[in-house]
Amino acid sequence: MIGCGVVGTGVFRVLAEHGELIETRLGAPLEIVRVAVRDPSRVRGELVPREKLTTDVDAILEDPEIDVVVELVGGVERPFEWLKKAMERGKHVVTANKAVMAVRGEELIAIAEARGVDLIYEGAVAGGVPILRVIREAFASDKIVELRGIVNGTSNYILTRMSEAKLSFQEALAEAQAKGYAEADPSLDVNGGDACHKLTLLARLAFGAKIRPEDIPTEGIDIVDARDMELARRFGYVVKPLAVASIRTGALDARVHPALVPARSDLAAIHGATNAVHVEGALVGPTMFSGAGAGAEPTAVSVVADIIDVARNILADSAGRVAPGCVLGVAIREFPRLPPEELSLPYYIRLSVDDDAGVLAEVASALGQNRVSIEAVVQTVQEAERSATVVLLTHEARETDVRAALALIAELPALREPPVVLRIVR
Amino acid sequence: MIGCGVVGTGVFRVLAEHGELIETRLGAPLEIVRVAVRDPSRVRGELVPREKLTTDVDAILEDPEIDVVVELVGGVERPFEWLKKAMERGKHVVTANKAVMAVRGEELIAIAEARGVDLIYEGAVAGGVPILRVIREAFASDKIVELRGIVNGTSNYILTRMSEAKLSFQEALAEAQAKGYAEADPSLDVNGGDACHKLTLLARLAFGAKIRPEDIPTEGIDIVDARDMELARRFGYVVKPLAVASIRTGALDARVHPALVPARSDLAAIHGATNAVHVEGALVGPTMFSGAGAGAEPTAVSVVADIIDVARNILADSAGRVAPGCVLGVAIREFPRLPPEELSLPYYIRLSVDDDAGVLAEVASALGQNRVSIEAVVQTVQEAERSATVVLLTHEARETDVRAALALIAELPALREPPVVLRIVR
Repeated sequence: MIGCGVVGTGVFRVLAEHGELIETRLGAPLEIVRVAVRDPSRVRGELVPREKLTTDVDAILEDPEIDVVVELVGGVERPFEWLKKAMERGKHVVTANKAVMAVRGEELIAIAEARGVDLIYEGAVAGGVPILRVIREAFASDKIVELRGIVNGTSNYILTRMSEAKLSFQEALAEAQAKGYAEADPSLDVNGGDACHKLTLLARLAFGAKIRPEDIPTEGIDIVDARDMELARRFGYVVKPLAVASIRTGALDARVHPALVPARSDLAAIHGATNAVHVEGALVGPTMFSGAGAGAEPTAVSVVADIIDVARNILADSAGRVAPGCVLGVAIREFPRLPPEELSLPYYIRLSVDDDAGVLAEVASALGQNRVSIEAVVQTVQEAERSATVVLLTHEARETDVRAALALIAELPALREPPVVLRIVR
Repeated sequence: MIGCGVVGTGVFRVLAEHGELIETRLGAPLEIVRVAVRDPSRVRGELVPREKLTTDVDAILEDPEIDVVVELVGGVERPFEWLKKAMERGKHVVTANKAVMAVRGEELIAIAEARGVDLIYEGAVAGGVPILRVIREAFASDKIVELRGIVNGTSNYILTRMSEAKLSFQEALAEAQAKGYAEADPSLDVNGGDACHKLTLLARLAFGAKIRPEDIPTEGIDIVDARDMELARRFGYVVKPLAVASIRTGALDARVHPALVPARSDLAAIHGATNAVHVEGALVGPTMFSGAGAGAEPTAVSVVADIIDVARNILADSAGRVAPGCVLGVAIREFPRLPPEELSLPYYIRLSVDDDAGVLAEVASALGQNRVSIEAVVQTVQEAERSATVVLLTHEARETDVRAALALIAELPALREPPVVLRIVR
């Protein structure tokens, strides 16, 4: 094992509590031979035997007795080198590192296939939710056409608390940090970067598509205001932090952003730090998978399940039984991208304007000129400030048209704040 | 393939639409060699080649060219003999037949383990939801402590429509039949028998427990009245058709019955004919898996995923890589049963009584004498009939105590209808 932080100590806990059960299921015991860490004095938890700790990663990578290398450090370049070296020496690898799989996953998958070793990474997406296994195996008989995930627990926790306890973004973030959901530096959670990495893994596996994090337009949840939660609710929606990937149009459309989802939809019922992925198969139809998105034990359960999978292959001499890239031979392929101007969705638009007759007409005209038709509009007047809040839901419209209309609206003298635009995902 | 009804024609459709995709994933093509049916003239669908049809099951079981036998007939005794014979001849088997796996599953699992062949049956529970695979593989590293499922789509459809459209049980059932969810004879759906079979499979696999359908106390949804849906809602609950199995107390508690679940819980958000299973792992915590519970294509996706799994084992020469009984060697074991008198839950009780002073005191006294304490009570008076409806929610109480109290209440002269009692599952 390389790395022994939260998830690593969780792996020790899983083996301490369920080691015997796992042995009866597997027919062989699992043993952690050695654990490489930067500073052994900082490793916590009485379950981690001190004599197994080393600072020398090569002591693991070069030990011929070790069958499986489990990487739990995070980051990209050093883990890439470790995983590469391990596989080149014939070792199977398990990782919970979304960053290395997002940025250099294609190379790692190619190495695993070339060397005939297993590379599994369930812990990298949605903690204890076995979504990669489901896509890879349960739906190997179907063609997945769309994924919609709530894959960052911190973001979902913040939006849930803003919606239900009427907290501000900052208050909800502080609470998430106090509860240990958010990192000290929560920027990758709230700016969508973490979800973008996870969506890269999901879309690559589900569609067999070449995709990199920088291909995914990503917006964080920091654009959502508590007022939007309340207004969305009036229209029958809830605001959720989504990661969406679809090949419905024949082209690949992948994006990370907060969105309005119908209050009765399955994703609307995912509260707090829970993660969920809604998967639409061409033939199986809509399905959903949810559970704890983070935390020592849930992620460690996924990591150890991966180790069991590798161990079953070792025992049956069937390494590479399921190709890591999902498709054999052709492996991961280029996929046409949905041109941004073809993205077509309904939109939620909130404007803060002077309370003057005629403003709504100007707004409607700007939308109409750009072929954006309005499904619903609600205007509320703040008399004291002589201002009005105008909320519009559009029919399905091309995003480029919506942006063009908003550029016109932004120039209206009556506009008091920059417009807020959120996508609606039904 | 034995049987070619709804699911069987679905299997042909999956292979027709995704055959090439499956071949790239698997590295080999899947071919249906022969299909045994009772009456070839009754097989529907242009996807089923007439020349593959036979009325002779032995033509399949005795053909040495056939690697995998897929049984899609249903029922117990004949499928048992077919599956047994196929495995004894070294063939792997896939079935979507919950009845044979519930009633004679232990014997079939023992045969599969003795012969070193694969026996997989994902299609038998919750259609397209890969819940057996998740339990068997994704949570092989954890200890499952409780399952709560909505595993009969017809029942859930009926209760959903009673709740949302205020239909009566009979109206909702008629609608379910018109939509094709319910069988012409819907008794196994509405009396809980179908869910009981599915829970047998789930509990056996999750806990490694010896369990038979007759061990599972089973109540149908026909005890639920539209009034109960409305009253439950006032207390913040929804009525759902549940299959519950738990080993939390150390003993096995398995039962099928309608129950009140909190309106904000994950199972409350499962509408219509959708199926869902909520799984609690000791370390992974609460997780949930949902999707289409029935229908040709969703179930066929599960059946073909099982065939792919078997084919992967054939190609890697790793049959029996995952033991069908989940635990090796010790296999499925006896588990202590929760004695009925130890079952302890909160309860919902609805009474129709004369609108007389003193009745509520008598009811409260009967409960108090039996150590059942009341959490909430609502009384509504029907003036015209001089009657009152009394609804009580109890704190957690032993079911034997609740039944004893109800026996006393049943003797009150003021009682106008038999009491309605529903369990509350939080």
